[in-house]
Amino acid sequence: MIIIVVGATGTLGKKVSDAFAQKHKVIRVGNTKGDVQVDITNEASIKAMFEKIGPFDALISTSGKGPFAPVKEMTGETFKKGLLDKLLGQVNLVLLGQHYINKGGSFTLTSGILADHPVAAGSALSAINGGLNSFVIAAAPELENGVRINAVSPNVVEDSPAYFDSFPGEIPVTMDKVVKAFEKSLLGIITGQVIKVY
Amino acid sequence: MIIIVVGATGTLGKKVSDAFAQKHKVIRVGNTKGDVQVDITNEASIKAMFEKIGPFDALISTSGKGPFAPVKEMTGETFKKGLLDKLLGQVNLVLLGQHYINKGGSFTLTSGILADHPVAAGSALSAINGGLNSFVIAAAPELENGVRINAVSPNVVEDSPAYFDSFPGEIPVTMDKVVKAFEKSLLGIITGQVIKVY
Repeated sequence: MIIIVVGATGTLGKKVSDAFAQKHKVIRVGNTKGDVQVDITNEASIKAMFEKIGPFDALISTSGKGPFAPVKEMTGETFKKGLLDKLLGQVNLVLLGQHYINKGGSFTLTSGILADHPVAAGSALSAINGGLNSFVIAAAPELENGVRINAVSPNVVEDSPAYFDSFPGEIPVTMDKVVKAFEKSLLGIITGQVIKVY
Repeated sequence: MIIIVVGATGTLGKKVSDAFAQKHKVIRVGNTKGDVQVDITNEASIKAMFEKIGPFDALISTSGKGPFAPVKEMTGETFKKGLLDKLLGQVNLVLLGQHYINKGGSFTLTSGILADHPVAAGSALSAINGGLNSFVIAAAPELENGVRINAVSPNVVEDSPAYFDSFPGEIPVTMDKVVKAFEKSLLGIITGQVIKVY
């Protein structure tokens, strides 16, 4: 398979890319590094990425930023910036990518535990992750040519100790377990699923 | 109570306003009609609304538009417009309103069944509604002074027959039942809840 990993230069994206690269051709896409560059907040940039890469079999997105800020201090502008990055950016990878993906291909987006289990200062990321999960459920039945779509929704991961204090009570999951969730989406048959790794 | 109903001139907003007006002071807010006008996609307009109304005890939002379009034809621009209207618009009513609402007050937003149960051409509204539900869950524990927040998530309603064909298999709910959900939020004790009317 030809697999595009958007966010391949990040903590999670690197592990996912390395895992799939053992048996597949992985195209590592980053914001400023990687085999190809993309700015997911810019539709023209996403389109240019697909034009450059050509047909592919699977797209994994581990990309997108969302803000942490207490509700009391959160501004509409900050909230909007997150919606247009991690939520709309990943949606646009699908809306544009559906016209380039091979028959029987798959899209796998990354949401996160905050959709269901909030933490302090996480309201924007909760909204973003909840929106992504519902988008995946809704888009799956409409995709044509056997193309599938799922979301991986991870807990805080062992490789990101800087976040541990922000997720009290959560048991950090191993990166291997999160990689397995992407394998389930790409190599399995499921579609319209939120694969919760927590 | 002084209750602000944003979207009071719409099908649902009118019924909700009429119900609460029997025992409370209801300020009906519309886009171009009503006691006060607001454009929820414009933060300055929302702020002007709160400045004009002054302190209040509850805000109900039945406002916000989202696009219907098949995934195949959906554009990023159309999707974005919906996110910035029904999702960010209602979030901004809370982010700005928290600085005007009385102690012990409540916010009640409107999401919808598409968050969990998709229909054809509804992917943007699914994302919007899913985002709203997760926002409410996350914002509730952070609101201060005993202020509560919930979302009412209705099925298609009996008063909107034009939508019946878009929701195959769904049994339209009565407007009275949806109004009761808003009563549960405003007059009850719950917070951080998605009240599903389906």
